[in-house]
Amino acid sequence: MDHWHTDHWHTEARMTGTTPALFTVDDYRARMERAVRAAADAGLAGLLVAPGPDLVWLTGYEPPAATERLTLLVLTAGHDPVLVVPALEAPDAAAAPGAPALDLRDWTDGKDPYALTAALLEDRAGYGISDNAWALHLLALQRKLPDASFASLTDALPMLRAVKDEAELKLLAAAGAAADATFEEIRKVPFGGRREADVAADLADLLRRFGHSRVDFTIVAAGPNGANPHHEAGDRVIERGDMVVLDFGGLKQGYGSDTTRTVHVGEPTGEERRVHAVVREAQEAGFRAVRPGVACQDVDRAARAVIADAGYGEYFIHRTGHGIGVTTHEPPYVVEGEEQPLVPGMCFSVEPGIYLPGRFGVRIEDIVTVTGDGGRRLNDTTRELVVVD
Amino acid sequence: MDHWHTDHWHTEARMTGTTPALFTVDDYRARMERAVRAAADAGLAGLLVAPGPDLVWLTGYEPPAATERLTLLVLTAGHDPVLVVPALEAPDAAAAPGAPALDLRDWTDGKDPYALTAALLEDRAGYGISDNAWALHLLALQRKLPDASFASLTDALPMLRAVKDEAELKLLAAAGAAADATFEEIRKVPFGGRREADVAADLADLLRRFGHSRVDFTIVAAGPNGANPHHEAGDRVIERGDMVVLDFGGLKQGYGSDTTRTVHVGEPTGEERRVHAVVREAQEAGFRAVRPGVACQDVDRAARAVIADAGYGEYFIHRTGHGIGVTTHEPPYVVEGEEQPLVPGMCFSVEPGIYLPGRFGVRIEDIVTVTGDGGRRLNDTTRELVVVD
Repeated sequence: MDHWHTDHWHTEARMTGTTPALFTVDDYRARMERAVRAAADAGLAGLLVAPGPDLVWLTGYEPPAATERLTLLVLTAGHDPVLVVPALEAPDAAAAPGAPALDLRDWTDGKDPYALTAALLEDRAGYGISDNAWALHLLALQRKLPDASFASLTDALPMLRAVKDEAELKLLAAAGAAADATFEEIRKVPFGGRREADVAADLADLLRRFGHSRVDFTIVAAGPNGANPHHEAGDRVIERGDMVVLDFGGLKQGYGSDTTRTVHVGEPTGEERRVHAVVREAQEAGFRAVRPGVACQDVDRAARAVIADAGYGEYFIHRTGHGIGVTTHEPPYVVEGEEQPLVPGMCFSVEPGIYLPGRFGVRIEDIVTVTGDGGRRLNDTTRELVVVD
Repeated sequence: MDHWHTDHWHTEARMTGTTPALFTVDDYRARMERAVRAAADAGLAGLLVAPGPDLVWLTGYEPPAATERLTLLVLTAGHDPVLVVPALEAPDAAAAPGAPALDLRDWTDGKDPYALTAALLEDRAGYGISDNAWALHLLALQRKLPDASFASLTDALPMLRAVKDEAELKLLAAAGAAADATFEEIRKVPFGGRREADVAADLADLLRRFGHSRVDFTIVAAGPNGANPHHEAGDRVIERGDMVVLDFGGLKQGYGSDTTRTVHVGEPTGEERRVHAVVREAQEAGFRAVRPGVACQDVDRAARAVIADAGYGEYFIHRTGHGIGVTTHEPPYVVEGEEQPLVPGMCFSVEPGIYLPGRFGVRIEDIVTVTGDGGRRLNDTTRELVVVD
């Protein structure tokens, strides 16, 4: 075959589908207008958005694949949004829920899509461009517009998608509830004597059963594996006496879930209970620090202080959290140095952990959204140390 | 979770895995040396290779995901190949089959991977960079090296992976044989009364049963749908009297398959037989034009002439073929204007078609490799019009 599936590195993403029409064209129009205003505030003449999460969020359009054939949303002040799209994919684009708000400009093989795009832009102006836009496309635009400047969207407008509207919050809450239902089921299955990978497969099945269209990760890290936050799930047979970190999530109706609970196979030792209690207290402290106006780094500091005060500071080896929305990993980042103030509608994980090399690890994670006067958890299974079989 | 699965748009690709250790470190070393020589011949000081097919081909390494965290292979003349990699992914990179030929330079969060990379490069020099490298990364390198120039690998070295070695040809032949076995089975299933999507699901199951780790496309286009080369497979119920275009492929042991046969449900009409015979003759003419030194466009012209002479020229609406290797779509392109001479070891599709709007379509496709004195097909099921139930 030719033409229609040009980048098979991305095909699976499409087959699992993530963009049901849950928003109206007015929602998409509002987002695009908000993006143009944010660009102007950042001193940019416009935004160039490639296939990926930004394009899904702005238009509901997820092309068959990210390819060498240019698909690019051009947002500039004072003009209707333009979607440059390969002719063969134009019917797909026209069917996207945000399409009625777009001026579709299709191009056929042999034509120059960069000339078409450059005609919509000004030389000597600055544009934001999707982080994941292909170098091939950026280089071609730079040749057409040698005096224009380009900045990645993450550098220029890191918070573009960070504040969720009511409809988005409902979808994130539904994804969180599905992840919680998954935990309630997985705690009933036998752990001891089974491989990590078997429990991970159960997690994936449960996430799908509770409505996820895509499973992004199912970490099952038992015993010493739990001390490596990079560990996913392997052939290790889970034993009685193991702490087991369970970290799982994906997309339900296009919005993300991500939660972590740490369980114990059989009765925990006193030390295991103490470490778990410290992480639980740290997670609670991080959550309680969430309110409008507080800097992201202060949430990290609040969680970290509990762990440091308990003497485990050197064993909390990652940041406290990350944003979530149409992806399961995005700004804002809850990390030292991030001074971005929290705004109602932001959603992110609060997930401190303690990792004792060669022994075990504990992590507890909820998705939290910023409300008018504090925070609200989108995960609410017990944060006590659960004993499993 | 955090850190380890940062770009969920690509996770599925990893889960399906495509890089068994079928090549030795010497194979990878030879490919990297060949790439550096090709870069020098093109006037470039080196190559910057992002995660994706080029990196798989050069090193056997397929990172967990393409992310905002820089992973980049730096190939420059006179230096060992360097792989810049996030610390958390360094163990994965070190386990890649080509890793012993690489100088791994890992970096941790908070460090500047672009400074690390720029220190390996010269300002005022030219570099090739992967088409699909992220704009985020290219922009950061451009800031560090304002006088360096960058060109996409497809612009600079389109034929980098085009000539396959013996081991690669064996894998492509095995993938082709698996696709052929799939066709031999699918022709036995009932078509009439079933939906296109059902037959497509059968095709996917068969490809996997015959060893594919990834199914990239399963086009089933019946009756008028066959006249749209963009059609994949839908809810249309296949009827007696339908022509059905079957175009399917994917990756087996990391190398691609892609074949098309057009079948007919019940007895074809005389016109249907004639159109099919024209496409078959065109495909044969394209195949017979393949030999070293012939330009790609001459293969296209040979196939196209048969269709034009039969009066169907305006209904052959795409190019004749595309290369195949670690992807199912890559250079060389068999298209008017491509003057690249064929070289032994090149592999590409020869897939002419006739598309009669509102009525039916016919396409016949084999993968062909260039030998010392001609071409050899990697697909060999019958090209006669097969009648199915």
